[in-house]
Amino acid sequence: MEELKLTSWTGQARTVVGVGPLRVGAGFTVIAGPCSVENELQLMTIARAVKDAGADALRGGAFKPRTSPYSFQGLGLKALKILEKARQETGLPIVTEVLDPRDVSWVSEFVDVLQIGARNMQNFSLLKEVGKGYRPVLLKRGMYSTLEEWLNSAEYILSAGNPNVILCERGIRTFEVYTRNTLDLSAVPAIRELSHLPIIVDPTHGTGRASLIESMALAAAAAGADGLIIEVHHNPKEALSDQAQALLPDAFSVLVHKVRSVRTCWEGLS
Amino acid sequence: MEELKLTSWTGQARTVVGVGPLRVGAGFTVIAGPCSVENELQLMTIARAVKDAGADALRGGAFKPRTSPYSFQGLGLKALKILEKARQETGLPIVTEVLDPRDVSWVSEFVDVLQIGARNMQNFSLLKEVGKGYRPVLLKRGMYSTLEEWLNSAEYILSAGNPNVILCERGIRTFEVYTRNTLDLSAVPAIRELSHLPIIVDPTHGTGRASLIESMALAAAAAGADGLIIEVHHNPKEALSDQAQALLPDAFSVLVHKVRSVRTCWEGLS
Amino acid sequence: MEELKLTSWTGQARTVVGVGPLRVGAGFTVIAGPCSVENELQLMTIARAVKDAGADALRGGAFKPRTSPYSFQGLGLKALKILEKARQETGLPIVTEVLDPRDVSWVSEFVDVLQIGARNMQNFSLLKEVGKGYRPVLLKRGMYSTLEEWLNSAEYILSAGNPNVILCERGIRTFEVYTRNTLDLSAVPAIRELSHLPIIVDPTHGTGRASLIESMALAAAAAGADGLIIEVHHNPKEALSDQAQALLPDAFSVLVHKVRSVRTCWEGLS
Amino acid sequence: MEELKLTSWTGQARTVVGVGPLRVGAGFTVIAGPCSVENELQLMTIARAVKDAGADALRGGAFKPRTSPYSFQGLGLKALKILEKARQETGLPIVTEVLDPRDVSWVSEFVDVLQIGARNMQNFSLLKEVGKGYRPVLLKRGMYSTLEEWLNSAEYILSAGNPNVILCERGIRTFEVYTRNTLDLSAVPAIRELSHLPIIVDPTHGTGRASLIESMALAAAAAGADGLIIEVHHNPKEALSDQAQALLPDAFSVLVHKVRSVRTCWEGLS
Repeated sequence: MEELKLTSWTGQARTVVGVGPLRVGAGFTVIAGPCSVENELQLMTIARAVKDAGADALRGGAFKPRTSPYSFQGLGLKALKILEKARQETGLPIVTEVLDPRDVSWVSEFVDVLQIGARNMQNFSLLKEVGKGYRPVLLKRGMYSTLEEWLNSAEYILSAGNPNVILCERGIRTFEVYTRNTLDLSAVPAIRELSHLPIIVDPTHGTGRASLIESMALAAAAAGADGLIIEVHHNPKEALSDQAQALLPDAFSVLVHKVRSVRTCWEGLS
Repeated sequence: MEELKLTSWTGQARTVVGVGPLRVGAGFTVIAGPCSVENELQLMTIARAVKDAGADALRGGAFKPRTSPYSFQGLGLKALKILEKARQETGLPIVTEVLDPRDVSWVSEFVDVLQIGARNMQNFSLLKEVGKGYRPVLLKRGMYSTLEEWLNSAEYILSAGNPNVILCERGIRTFEVYTRNTLDLSAVPAIRELSHLPIIVDPTHGTGRASLIESMALAAAAAGADGLIIEVHHNPKEALSDQAQALLPDAFSVLVHKVRSVRTCWEGLS
Repeated sequence: MEELKLTSWTGQARTVVGVGPLRVGAGFTVIAGPCSVENELQLMTIARAVKDAGADALRGGAFKPRTSPYSFQGLGLKALKILEKARQETGLPIVTEVLDPRDVSWVSEFVDVLQIGARNMQNFSLLKEVGKGYRPVLLKRGMYSTLEEWLNSAEYILSAGNPNVILCERGIRTFEVYTRNTLDLSAVPAIRELSHLPIIVDPTHGTGRASLIESMALAAAAAGADGLIIEVHHNPKEALSDQAQALLPDAFSVLVHKVRSVRTCWEGLS
Repeated sequence: MEELKLTSWTGQARTVVGVGPLRVGAGFTVIAGPCSVENELQLMTIARAVKDAGADALRGGAFKPRTSPYSFQGLGLKALKILEKARQETGLPIVTEVLDPRDVSWVSEFVDVLQIGARNMQNFSLLKEVGKGYRPVLLKRGMYSTLEEWLNSAEYILSAGNPNVILCERGIRTFEVYTRNTLDLSAVPAIRELSHLPIIVDPTHGTGRASLIESMALAAAAAGADGLIIEVHHNPKEALSDQAQALLPDAFSVLVHKVRSVRTCWEGLS
């Protein structure tokens, strides 16, 4: 990768992305919430629970990139209004995914961070559009993408004028079937040596199994990640998407406590 | 995959996609042309050559999905006008890739088939947009997509109202480094047993090496594919993209001759 | 791979491996038979059937490399004696797998070709042992092996003194789940440009689905392979291993006829 | 995987493998040493260094499974005698790899733990042989192996009579090229929920880059692994194998200190 000269990995100081009061890349950021916004009661219940558990930001999907056209596709604008309400009540900044370049501008008025999902990591029209925008971008690694391709996708955003990119490792596709994806935690130190951008980890999609998430969250913290994004649902069995991998609020609360302990220990090491 | 009931694979008769005089899915269709439209002289030279060699349609990129934002991104409208001119002169229908849902409508006025590239196979906004359009769609398999996911992406197009989908196997990403991708020819009989949609093969991206393309084209014909899409350039070393994998017109001409011979033999077998 | 200087790919004339009357690498060789030798009646029935269908050699497992220690492990010596009898009656040379370096010497007295399976492609003790022996070796590609690693494994055999190596592509492991493995047919022309060793194809393990085997056998012939190895069983549902992928003798007979037709056409092309 | 009933994962208490004074599976075990034993001076220098740094056992290769037959293959018996000397002086138990079933018995007289390498995870003859032996076995995961296949390989050893198996995650092969393999740390909690066997992690082969090892070692400790195995060399540039990935003794010493700190924190969490 030596021949490239990307803005995303010149030797500048590490980037800290400001999201309201949050400073992603300084300290350890925990983002949590449901896969999809299903209705106001569901979202408010979960928002309060993750706030109480110590989350720093709320995630929730309004537009869902589903494999099948016949699966639930998200509530769209209605979800954005519910998310706005949750921010008002809890004070948590909102992270939501955009799928279409035509949505970037107006969705930016409702939320604090725009997520680009794994399937859109090389949707270059979308990358250019969020690059022209003013909202910080959470850029997930494609399930088939090398680190070099990922940083090049970040470069599409940076080179369009938006310096606020947060990278998110969410597992790559391999032959293993026990887990939904294979979480590549070596991406954390690798990205930290290649780039100045903050990197967080998604152990929910990275494993696809609720029972493995806490261990992978602890591992991510000890590997030097700048944060986590985790799916939480108060009633996973009734969730409209990703039922097998959401944590209950109580389990999430325990996880946050443990992760912060390990992180404090880790910070004392250097 | 038994639990799904997709329009793309109910037991209807095999789909034949009409593209002007061409009938993809009945007979064997050869699409050829450069990776990118670079200028009028380049495209017209190649268009005449592939026409003479026996190609049925012309491909050429106007919008290029490049890993790096600093690579050549295509000539856009200028390329479309050149492609239009090539159709006028050669009579070959035109295949070109679209990257952005906002381009579907106006690009459809210039070309005959809209290609959805591997990186956009799960760009659901784009799939819905071409599904609402009137142009046939060439849907490439994602480099990390299962057959089931691929058929679900086709379903996005079909369910939006456009029945004219041509599938294209173009290689999947594996650990092998000698080839650019691993061409999965078993997808040909597999798709033929799962779906009624025609399937063609791209041995150019599937191997990434000019020396392997003829053998893989012959193999595709013998495996039962409905056609091929192949990159041809009169001067590969000067090409603005994909230099290592374009065939010279003479080699392409030999390939077409051999492929049609094998195909004739294959048709006599059943 | 330019820096290596392997005996397996210096610019010598293409190797032809003599197996009794057979000359693998000159002409097109079809090897067929059951996964495992189960009993004398089973093997003799299948041996006669594949002989009648036009096979050139008989395969049958005496030692089975099974994932689980509790699965059928093969009949061992008893199977070898049955295979010997089949050769006497049909005249077909025998191919069987060895798993243990201690078995190479005595098993060589019963059979004509020793197979090294995919799981043992980098079992270097075993490679050295068959390299010191006098029997031709059928070396399958490991399910996670690059072409370079495969040729290096061949080199272990050649450098120990045995020049008679037949390579066999049998599919690699990928993320796709519809097929058992992904048959990498581009390995055929790739190996032919890298090495002088003959290469055959195993569409049975390469797909794991009986319905895909004929198409992949035809594709292999058109890609330039030197032959095929195919599992045939007269009663697949009762087979002790690999039930989903064995062909019935009648289907195998049709396959041989079609493959030889395509091959004749292919030979007329150059 | 529910249908299987493997000894390796029935609901018994967690296995603790005794290796001299060490108890692998109770506490956190650090195994370290060079890839290959090169000469007495080299090994004794490294043995003393890893002992001083806090390692619990010494690794060193006498028989090397090398891709090419022309690469250094290990010193064999000479290496074993040097390892024996190192144990005498440092008191560290010795771990070394065996490649050939014929070596299991006599090598067992020199060393404390027999390692089965990734390439031999499905070398069933070798598994059966170490299963009949009396030495604990360190069973590495194959680079292409699912968790289910790995536990089945452990089962070959257990069912042959040897209950002392230590599993070792060492990275799987994926499309990513920045790292040599992709270290699958989710295997740690997954194996802990599936099996009673101890599991350690090899961040050296798992990443292939010295700069990533410390982060992955910390992550493994926080994920719940029972220990680590790490390559250390006092002069990596002159090493006869694996030069790019060995740690210097000083870096290893820092790593051990940090890992034990994180581990102490982790143990306080439950």
